[in-house]
Amino acid sequence: MPGNSFGELFKVTTFGESHGPAIGAIVDGCPPGLPLTEADLQGDLDRRRPGANRYTTARREADQVKILSGVFEGVTTGTPIGLLIENTDQRSKDYSDIKDLFRPGHADYTYEHKYGVRDYRGGGRSSARETAMRVAAGGIARKYLQQELGVEIRAGLVQMGAISVQNLNWGEVHNNSFFCPDASIIDDLDQLIRDLLKAGDSIGARIRVEALNVPVGLGEPVFDRLEADLAKALMSINAVKAVSIGDGFAVVEQRGSEHRDALTPTGFGSNHCGGVLGGISTGQPFVAELALKPTSSITTPGDTINKQGEAQQISTRGRHDPCVGIRGVPIAEAMMALVVMDHLLRHRAQNGDVKSSVPDIANL
Amino acid sequence: MPGNSFGELFKVTTFGESHGPAIGAIVDGCPPGLPLTEADLQGDLDRRRPGANRYTTARREADQVKILSGVFEGVTTGTPIGLLIENTDQRSKDYSDIKDLFRPGHADYTYEHKYGVRDYRGGGRSSARETAMRVAAGGIARKYLQQELGVEIRAGLVQMGAISVQNLNWGEVHNNSFFCPDASIIDDLDQLIRDLLKAGDSIGARIRVEALNVPVGLGEPVFDRLEADLAKALMSINAVKAVSIGDGFAVVEQRGSEHRDALTPTGFGSNHCGGVLGGISTGQPFVAELALKPTSSITTPGDTINKQGEAQQISTRGRHDPCVGIRGVPIAEAMMALVVMDHLLRHRAQNGDVKSSVPDIANL
Amino acid sequence: MPGNSFGELFKVTTFGESHGPAIGAIVDGCPPGLPLTEADLQGDLDRRRPGANRYTTARREADQVKILSGVFEGVTTGTPIGLLIENTDQRSKDYSDIKDLFRPGHADYTYEHKYGVRDYRGGGRSSARETAMRVAAGGIARKYLQQELGVEIRAGLVQMGAISVQNLNWGEVHNNSFFCPDASIIDDLDQLIRDLLKAGDSIGARIRVEALNVPVGLGEPVFDRLEADLAKALMSINAVKAVSIGDGFAVVEQRGSEHRDALTPTGFGSNHCGGVLGGISTGQPFVAELALKPTSSITTPGDTINKQGEAQQISTRGRHDPCVGIRGVPIAEAMMALVVMDHLLRHRAQNGDVKSSVPDIANL
Amino acid sequence: MPGNSFGELFKVTTFGESHGPAIGAIVDGCPPGLPLTEADLQGDLDRRRPGANRYTTARREADQVKILSGVFEGVTTGTPIGLLIENTDQRSKDYSDIKDLFRPGHADYTYEHKYGVRDYRGGGRSSARETAMRVAAGGIARKYLQQELGVEIRAGLVQMGAISVQNLNWGEVHNNSFFCPDASIIDDLDQLIRDLLKAGDSIGARIRVEALNVPVGLGEPVFDRLEADLAKALMSINAVKAVSIGDGFAVVEQRGSEHRDALTPTGFGSNHCGGVLGGISTGQPFVAELALKPTSSITTPGDTINKQGEAQQISTRGRHDPCVGIRGVPIAEAMMALVVMDHLLRHRAQNGDVKSSVPDIANL
Repeated sequence: MPGNSFGELFKVTTFGESHGPAIGAIVDGCPPGLPLTEADLQGDLDRRRPGANRYTTARREADQVKILSGVFEGVTTGTPIGLLIENTDQRSKDYSDIKDLFRPGHADYTYEHKYGVRDYRGGGRSSARETAMRVAAGGIARKYLQQELGVEIRAGLVQMGAISVQNLNWGEVHNNSFFCPDASIIDDLDQLIRDLLKAGDSIGARIRVEALNVPVGLGEPVFDRLEADLAKALMSINAVKAVSIGDGFAVVEQRGSEHRDALTPTGFGSNHCGGVLGGISTGQPFVAELALKPTSSITTPGDTINKQGEAQQISTRGRHDPCVGIRGVPIAEAMMALVVMDHLLRHRAQNGDVKSSVPDIANL
Repeated sequence: MPGNSFGELFKVTTFGESHGPAIGAIVDGCPPGLPLTEADLQGDLDRRRPGANRYTTARREADQVKILSGVFEGVTTGTPIGLLIENTDQRSKDYSDIKDLFRPGHADYTYEHKYGVRDYRGGGRSSARETAMRVAAGGIARKYLQQELGVEIRAGLVQMGAISVQNLNWGEVHNNSFFCPDASIIDDLDQLIRDLLKAGDSIGARIRVEALNVPVGLGEPVFDRLEADLAKALMSINAVKAVSIGDGFAVVEQRGSEHRDALTPTGFGSNHCGGVLGGISTGQPFVAELALKPTSSITTPGDTINKQGEAQQISTRGRHDPCVGIRGVPIAEAMMALVVMDHLLRHRAQNGDVKSSVPDIANL
Repeated sequence: MPGNSFGELFKVTTFGESHGPAIGAIVDGCPPGLPLTEADLQGDLDRRRPGANRYTTARREADQVKILSGVFEGVTTGTPIGLLIENTDQRSKDYSDIKDLFRPGHADYTYEHKYGVRDYRGGGRSSARETAMRVAAGGIARKYLQQELGVEIRAGLVQMGAISVQNLNWGEVHNNSFFCPDASIIDDLDQLIRDLLKAGDSIGARIRVEALNVPVGLGEPVFDRLEADLAKALMSINAVKAVSIGDGFAVVEQRGSEHRDALTPTGFGSNHCGGVLGGISTGQPFVAELALKPTSSITTPGDTINKQGEAQQISTRGRHDPCVGIRGVPIAEAMMALVVMDHLLRHRAQNGDVKSSVPDIANL
Repeated sequence: MPGNSFGELFKVTTFGESHGPAIGAIVDGCPPGLPLTEADLQGDLDRRRPGANRYTTARREADQVKILSGVFEGVTTGTPIGLLIENTDQRSKDYSDIKDLFRPGHADYTYEHKYGVRDYRGGGRSSARETAMRVAAGGIARKYLQQELGVEIRAGLVQMGAISVQNLNWGEVHNNSFFCPDASIIDDLDQLIRDLLKAGDSIGARIRVEALNVPVGLGEPVFDRLEADLAKALMSINAVKAVSIGDGFAVVEQRGSEHRDALTPTGFGSNHCGGVLGGISTGQPFVAELALKPTSSITTPGDTINKQGEAQQISTRGRHDPCVGIRGVPIAEAMMALVVMDHLLRHRAQNGDVKSSVPDIANL
């Protein structure tokens, strides 16, 4: 199967290049009867949108999504939902000088190798611009999950460079342009970005994403474990280099007596597992973290080669984010929503509605 | 789609419970003309096999694989390959006393919730026993990749608890029962295992897995990136809680000028990216790490509940590994092989044989 | 995706050659809680079994199916069900003389071309022997459908050569070895088979297959219409050359005023459509027919070539059916069961349990 | 998986309702390097287009397709191709009076049952309007197949009512508005349509579709046989009720000695099989026929019920074709192209480029 679809039953297929006329998606498999308008999707799109604040790329896109099908009189009909966003601020000439260069850290070299041809304008298909459609599609899943099951999905930037969150306060995420859940480090983050812009450099970031009220029982072992599909979903986001669930890499130094979460008549005693056991949700918060590399599009010159294999220097002059991890927050939420939604439908297919035939301590 | 298949074009579907009569797999999509015998698969199976050394579970399984189809006169025919391993040392009575208990850290609770019924003997389908079929199927992919393209896949245990590899020496992996690429820490690892057995406890581990000579161009953006599919593959292994590519979580503190790998006329200058850019292989070593949690099956008593929701104590008396990370090594290799193989076939479908129309610096 | 799986959510993957050690299947996605034993599957297998009566091949296979996983204490657990049938009466030497010949009307020539290598013994994978696994897997679907929804599936041979059923009497199907629903033509069929055996020839057949009590609403337009998936399912059976739904090819000469089935307060007035409108079941009987070609394995000599392209004569001396359409009856039933089952699960995923929010005239 | 995608490797996903703002498709998996413009697709779209001639619906749609992605500087890039056609002549008020009625022979009743809600304007998603996207997507496959392998695909209307083609002359297809390969029956067809329009009725049709120069070896047994996937593809077209391959239902009365096609050193002696043996192409013409029912949208009043289950009379006043089989011709060609293209890519994945290691008599 080609690689531009995500999900088995809530299936999202996307198209579009950074500098083509439009980007779009088809969401196939959405349950009928969900009230849905473009406004439901626009909020998250605006959070991801380039040009939304000074910490992200100066490219300005309205990112106004249109719903072209699958909704009738304000309600989903069960037929595929066509989504479209027209590109408006493309400035293709910004990129013509790198036509024959492979930007280091970018997909230029690999796309050229793979396909023998590439749309070099703004990275073409490899641009993070495609993630706008993930956010739009994820918004549909998110609304359904919230409405049907009260599932809440949230993410925040918890580390940038050496600065990391001290106290997680989810209420703060919407109060700053970093989507950071800790007000006490905002000034430091702001200073770091200023320093990077001055230096013509960029920085990596760590994001935490959680889904609350996920019903017990989602996940399809042995390969399509809930966390395996989330790992794929998050690792498929541009720039992501690592994904962890629950305690993540810290488990390497843990002992079994410490890691395993006790079950008690009033609930789990802890959540080291991050909400999944044996590939299936426990009903506790489903918790993951992801690492995003520093963007390679910086004004600091770097060594590279051209298509003829000759040594060249390159300095990116386009409009780019000093930390792509910031805009990664709504994208991580969207992918989480898509994974949980897809697994909800998969669970229903085989098992019918969520069972509660055993003591459901997770929800106590 | 149900969750017991892996791969789109080199598709592995497995079945079998820990204490059923047999486990098995069907490998569909294997190219014809590959010389293949059961002996080709047995080596890796023996490395994963329970009872193979004192550091792993005392359960003894011959794990003798049979090829039931798809091979004729010693050569694959292009038709599906049926694989079967009979279970021999099942000792089901070991488990009868935990029939109504949910072992903490295990899938008992979630399977009961999901399906309303479960085979409680040895964890049933949630047992790591199913990974034997991954190793067998992965062995086929591995042989094909090695023979056709010279791809080499290797893995090693690089950390157990606080003890981590100092100098990576791949040649050492086959010289010790830990599959550890550093002879200097073997004694410490040995002592740690002895201490754990005495304490009735277990420990986590970190594994590094690499594929060398992967051709440039494998990977199917935007969702089915090579590293996204590997992240899923590795996260689908029992006990895995984190996966990283290249520099992994360390990218959070890196700057763009540091992270992006320079291209030069004689090759890449570094491999921070771990062999993938834009979801497509660069031709450099494809490098990942994974964290495995400490097994929850320990003799140290733990709190849990029974099916009636009443508080209980449990102490696992079955035969288990103090560190499942050891046997995770051949499993990680198998999953790496399956991912690279599947993407090789996917690349061929759309693009024909691997292109070399641009300067192929990665292989210089 | 390779071609040995059927179904999206009730997924059957098969392996095995005519003269290998065994054939098998994995059924993934079966709902948990279904009482299931090997005896449930054996009945249909015995109907399909070679050597069951004088009208079919003299090869004798016990076709004793074993369930290797997915069932615990007599009930399905939701994990994959492994099925195995050992081949017992293989007589490989029957076939050694056709090693380098392409039997006309068989898959020898195309398999050789496609794969460059083939198991020539009894047709290898192209043998109808693989349909035994379809019957076994279909039996699971059939039991579930019957138990959960009262769905009844039935098929019968309605034409062989020029002899066709005059009055459809489903009760007769189990009273004769032709699975023919018309007692009045049994003697003619018997005489036709005798004549063919004497002449060393074979004959085609037409089968009718129906599913009753299929709930309204199954089918996934626009591509995965219920009848489109059935067409594929039936056309995938060896020797099938045509499939029709409802009135089939007769619609070419019908007028709209004649064909369209009236809806009345007490039910549909007719069933020209065969139980599907717009790709979705109407609740009426779901009706299809299929045409099976005469087997090419006959003792009458025929022209062919060998692998060197030289002209040869061939006369099949193996054990074969004069009319493969007879044994096609339980196979058609199995494929119908697999299609309806798969679509039931697919419907559930998106729409939950079968809706009855509109007047359900079909079931009046 | 939801039902709006077709193909495994050349994957087409469509969206759009008859009276929504637009219809569209994503073609994922197209090989890079194919020269492609909108003009390449417009020709077939114009043949299918409503309002193109007096024998088809009076609705007038420009059906101007836009390529939104996947093509750069006139050549495909290997990334997904977004296609869009805006609806222009929607006249939604034509349909408001049937909002609560189930038109007999239409999908109104089944969509209402399945989804609990439906876009009743012009049939919404169940309208044949969606087939425009099949034609556009099929045009891409067709161009690739023609250019790479010289595959030619052609179809024609070979029967309407009782009038059937006497002499097949493919050159005639483009000379008349019926896409009929026999000039001698055009006057009769014309008269039949006039009579039907006068009578307010409609008629069924039979179409023949062929692919020439299909390489030997395409098809993925045992389930995804080439003809099985074609059967599904054709049966998924609105109004199709039967599909046959080669001799089709006539095989029921044939003997094996008559049906099996002899192989000779200079080629196959006949093509009863229709170009497939064992589910794999033989290299001969791949031949199929399909039956389309008479449209149910006629002015002759018919019995039906409303959503309250009350008896009603209905007479369709919208703009409809007296014989949908006419416009079915380019749609059948498109589906044939999609099937052959998908199987070409599937074959390549496992087997590399088409083999010629055995005498290739089919192409002599």
